[in-house]
This record gives sequence, C-alpha cells and structure tokens, in this order.
Amino acid sequence: MPVPPSLPQTTDIDHESAFVRAVGVRMVELLDGYRGRAAAISDSATPLVESIAGLVRGGKRMRAVLSWWGWQGAGGHPDDPRILDAAVALELFQAAALIHDDILDRSDTRRGAPSIHRAFEARHQQAGWRQDPCHFGVSAAILTGDLCLSLSEEVFASAADASTNPAGARSLFNEMRFEVMAGQYLDILDEVEVPGQDPAEALQRARTVLRFKSARYSVVHPLGLGGILAGADEDLLEHYGRISAPLGEAFQLQDDLLGVFGDPAVTGKPAGDDLREGKRTELVAHALDLLTPSQVAEVEAALGDPQLSPEAVSRIQTLLESGGARARVEREVLDLGDASLAALVEAPMDQGAKVGLGQLARQILDRKH
Amino acid sequence: MPVPPSLPQTTDIDHESAFVRAVGVRMVELLDGYRGRAAAISDSATPLVESIAGLVRGGKRMRAVLSWWGWQGAGGHPDDPRILDAAVALELFQAAALIHDDILDRSDTRRGAPSIHRAFEARHQQAGWRQDPCHFGVSAAILTGDLCLSLSEEVFASAADASTNPAGARSLFNEMRFEVMAGQYLDILDEVEVPGQDPAEALQRARTVLRFKSARYSVVHPLGLGGILAGADEDLLEHYGRISAPLGEAFQLQDDLLGVFGDPAVTGKPAGDDLREGKRTELVAHALDLLTPSQVAEVEAALGDPQLSPEAVSRIQTLLESGGARARVEREVLDLGDASLAALVEAPMDQGAKVGLGQLARQILDRKH
Repeated sequence: MPVPPSLPQTTDIDHESAFVRAVGVRMVELLDGYRGRAAAISDSATPLVESIAGLVRGGKRMRAVLSWWGWQGAGGHPDDPRILDAAVALELFQAAALIHDDILDRSDTRRGAPSIHRAFEARHQQAGWRQDPCHFGVSAAILTGDLCLSLSEEVFASAADASTNPAGARSLFNEMRFEVMAGQYLDILDEVEVPGQDPAEALQRARTVLRFKSARYSVVHPLGLGGILAGADEDLLEHYGRISAPLGEAFQLQDDLLGVFGDPAVTGKPAGDDLREGKRTELVAHALDLLTPSQVAEVEAALGDPQLSPEAVSRIQTLLESGGARARVEREVLDLGDASLAALVEAPMDQGAKVGLGQLARQILDRKH
Repeated sequence: MPVPPSLPQTTDIDHESAFVRAVGVRMVELLDGYRGRAAAISDSATPLVESIAGLVRGGKRMRAVLSWWGWQGAGGHPDDPRILDAAVALELFQAAALIHDDILDRSDTRRGAPSIHRAFEARHQQAGWRQDPCHFGVSAAILTGDLCLSLSEEVFASAADASTNPAGARSLFNEMRFEVMAGQYLDILDEVEVPGQDPAEALQRARTVLRFKSARYSVVHPLGLGGILAGADEDLLEHYGRISAPLGEAFQLQDDLLGVFGDPAVTGKPAGDDLREGKRTELVAHALDLLTPSQVAEVEAALGDPQLSPEAVSRIQTLLESGGARARVEREVLDLGDASLAALVEAPMDQGAKVGLGQLARQILDRKH
C-alpha cells in the first residue's frame, strides 16, 4: 500500500490535530458509502447510518490518537492509510458501545445531542407514528448499535488484512469486543445485585468493571492495536501494557470522579449522574471502608435512585469528600499516572512517539471532562 | 488443513444428519472456550455465554445445511472443518439476530424456552435483585446479542481466512449483516408508520422487508457463502442465486402464512402472533387489494393490537382466507418453488449436492413450522 508523503512543516501537535481531522474526514467518507449501501436497500433505511454519522461527528478521538501513537511507536508511518482506518474502526466501535450503553443507562443525551434511542423516539413522535415511541426508539437504537458494531469490524478487518500481522490484530480486536461486553454486563449486574458490605470485595469488583468495561478498551487495546498493526514485537507490546494498563485505570477513575463531582457546565452531564445510575465505583467501595455504618446506609440509599435531588447529591458528595474516599481515588490516579509515565520513559520507542504519547497521557491524567 | 476421511457407509441423508450433529458438537466446543474466556474475566460474566449456548442447542440448522450444500456444490469436501466452522458462524449469527429481534417483537418465548431477555428478567426476579427486572432483562439481552454477533464474526473470519477466497467470503458476510439490520429496521418502521392504502405499494414494501430481513440471510447468503468458501466462480454463484432467491422468498412467505394460520401445537407460537405484532406481510398487502373497505378497516384495526382475542384472530383468518389473500400467497409459494427447482436442475453442480439441495428445498417449501 503506498504511503503518502508526510504532511509538511507541522509540529507533533499540529500533526496530531491533522490526524484527528483526517479521522473525521475518513469516517464521513466511509459512512457516505454505507449510507449508499442502505439506500440501495431502501431510502427508508438510511437513518440507521445517518444516526451513526451524527454521533461520530463528536468525541475526543482519544482511542484513535492512542492507536496512532502506538503505531508510530512501533515504527509505523504517521500518514499511513492503514492506521487511519484502524483508528476509524476504534471510533466506530466506541460509538456502537455508547449507543447500546445509553439504552442500558437510560441516558437521554450523548455528546450534547439526544442519545440515539431518544432521537428515534423523537422521530416517531414528530412523525405521528403509531404504537409506543419509546419502544420504537429503543428498538431502532439496538439495530443502529448492531450495525455500528458490524461496520467497526468491517473497517478494522480491512486495515488489519493490509498489515503485517492480520491474525494478531484481529485476535486483539476480538479480545477487546469480548471484554467490553462482559464488562458492561458486570456493570449492570453490580447495579442490581444486593451489595456485600466487605470493602475489599467491593473494591475488587469495582476494579474488575473499571478494567474490562473501560480501561482496556479505552486505552490499553487502542495503543496495543496500533502497535501490533505496525508489527510491534512481544517486548514492545509488554512495554505498551506497562504504560497503558495504569493509564487506562487512571482514565476511568477520573471519569468516576467526574461522574460524582464533575461540573455540569464542563462535563455536559447532570451533577451526580453516576449516583442516580447506581454505579458502584471504587469511590463507593472506599466509602464502605471509611464512613460510619449510618453514613454508608445513606450512600446506599442514594445509589440508583433516579429521583435523587440536587440537595441529596450534594450531601453524598460531602460524605465522599469529608470521609476521604475522594482523596483516596485522587491519590490512586496520581500513583497510576506516575507508574504509566515511568514505564513510558523506559519503553524502547521512537522518541517522537514517546513525546507525543507522553503529552496525550498527561492530558488524560488531567482531564476535566 | 487436513481433511478427515468421509464418514463411511452413510447415505446422503445420514450424512446430512451427521453434519447437523457435528455442527452442534462444534458449537458446544467453541462456546465452552468462550465460556472460559468469560470466566477469566469474572465467573459472574459466564451467563452471557451460557445464554447463547442454551439458545443454539435448538434450531433447525437450515442455514448450516444450506451452506454445506453450497460448499459441496462447488466441490468442497463434506467433512472439511472449514465449512463446519462457517456453518456454526451462520447459526451464531442467526442466534444474535433472534436475541435482539425478540426484544423488538416483545417475544416471550423462543425455541420452546423463554427468550433471552425474559430469561434474564426471571433470573433477576428469582435472585431478588434490586431495580427493574424488565430493564435488566432487556439490557442483558442487548449485551448477549452483541457478544453473539461478535462471536459469529470471529468464527466466520477464521473459517474464511482458511479458505481460498477470504476477501470474497468476508465481503458477502458483511453484506449479509448489513442487509439483516436494515431489513429489521424497515420491519419495525412498517409496524409504526401510518400505512398507505395503495396495495401495489404495500406489496412492494412487504417484499422488501421479506427479502432483506429474512430471505437473503436465511437462504441466499448461506448457500452463496458455502459456495464462495469452496471457491465457486461467478457463473456458479449466479446459478446459486437463481435457486436461492425464489427459495428464500418462498421460505419467508411460508413463515408469513404460519404466522397467521399456523397450528400453535406445531409452530410453538400462539395463533395469529404476526397479527398481534402488526406485521405488514404480503398477506396483508393482498388483503388491501381483495377485501372491501370495511373489511380492510377491520384488518387494520386488528394489526398490532397485543390484546387481540382468539375470536378476533379467527375472524381475521377467515377474512384473509375467504377474500383470497391466503390463496394468492400460497400460489406465490408454489410458483417460487417451481422457479427454484427449475434453476436447480440447470445448475452446473456436483450431482450429489444437487440431489441433497433439492431435498432440502422441498422440505423448506413444505414446511409446517
């Protein structure tokens, strides 16, 4: 496959921005093609693809950029179309996970717009269709997510097949899919199971969900897939794992902190959203350990209450803060960040990729939304 | 890849039964492995895989056997493990589609057992978990379907990669996935959109749904995938299309007839299930053409009414029968069957595969459940 010449006269950061733009352009191009495929079946089928296109216009492209640095760290050319397609596939995979996750979590919004099931529900209502708009919205979103999942694989497979290690790349992609679905199931299970009171066990369960539902597919696998596609050997992939495993966990712990303490004006989500959804994060596990039994009971009563008032959210925030749970998680983020950056220093990577990945890691560790 | 010796002393029908058993055995073997993969994440995650294993114990294996005849018709060895895996992948793909389809159609049972979302709902209730059992059931079934869809692709890709035409096989698999999802969307759209009164347009819409939601993935693509994996050339694939396109449509028209007139004792579904679900099949389209306006209004009022009484079902059955809609569809099944069998006679296939496929085609055309 021909490798186009490097974009001229750009710094690393400019180059990263150019790559992010290229991901967006390539995604539009591919989805235009898929829209045509839908239209060939029926014009009425195009909203499935258009919904995906709308959703992937947004997003931080973190997984795409991680795969790009993983690719370059293993000697891949930054402008190679294969890593561009693999990055698009990761963004589509994330979109598929979000579409279904928003049904599971009953989320009304995503990336500043209605979630896909809500958008189809609104389409039903606006058109004055028959039967239950909510059921139609969920049904259409299930199908949209299925299609997006299939397309992510289709795009990934074509990138993998053009690489030097198609089998290894596909195997890792399969592992990622499996882990996310299992992790999401453990997540919804944790929300409904009657929780044990043992803080150590709660911490262990929360860490398992965090790893499989988020850390590995958000950070570990994108970096590893980029590497494997560029022909990284076992040694380099091990180094990648030492960088990405703590970074991925720190990423999700930050997300957990934002889900309880985040500023709605910055995160775009209501304050205390994770509390209303009943997420049993490490923050909650630490609270079991640090708070008095009556305080624990108060936290437990709040978790999963969709009607939780802003005052109750504020009260739980205070408990998690004054009891020290927040500080423990923040400390953990710092420790994980240190471990990740220390591993980065030691990794036998191209220097430019090391600098770029280090900058991205710091952005992830300092994230505010 | 070594090809095991042919099973000794079997007739074609015995051999087909042996293949069907082998599909079941291989599916159990693969799912045992996936169960282990889930257990490595958490023992709590294994119900996802166990649900799939339970569902695929049943089923007629029609898609598996079609792919096997398509494979043999193109010169493939009947005991080659590659077609076994491809057949398993098709069964898993169907299972994935059924799991999500049962959520869309609010079906309580599947293959004589609770549908997956109902089974997870019951698990929630029996365990005395918290929050809404119904939402948990749907959420877990969404994830189970996602996993099953991913596994079907994983198994198919490994079979395709070991074949002489991996790119062609994967492209057809991608087309199949896309079509089913688009077809399912058109199906739910037809249930909610305010229908036009033009019988020709209704017939066209019904035929589009029938093709893409069912006929192509149930019959056309399994036969074609079997062929392409064995290295079938364009000419043979065209012949396959002339056999399978009418056969697939006849298969689904039979299903439509069974959905309204089927004997519950044989189909395992309540009488008139398609009426309660509001399926706008060709049977309904013909009714628009053949019945009086007041009769049409009666049919329209019944469609999609989940509370439809057995008496009302019986009344609609009579209308569809006496007005001639049923006879038109039955005529169409016969004509399509004739076209399919005539194309089979002309196809440049191995004689044994031709006989076997012909027997299967007749079973499909005569199906009673």
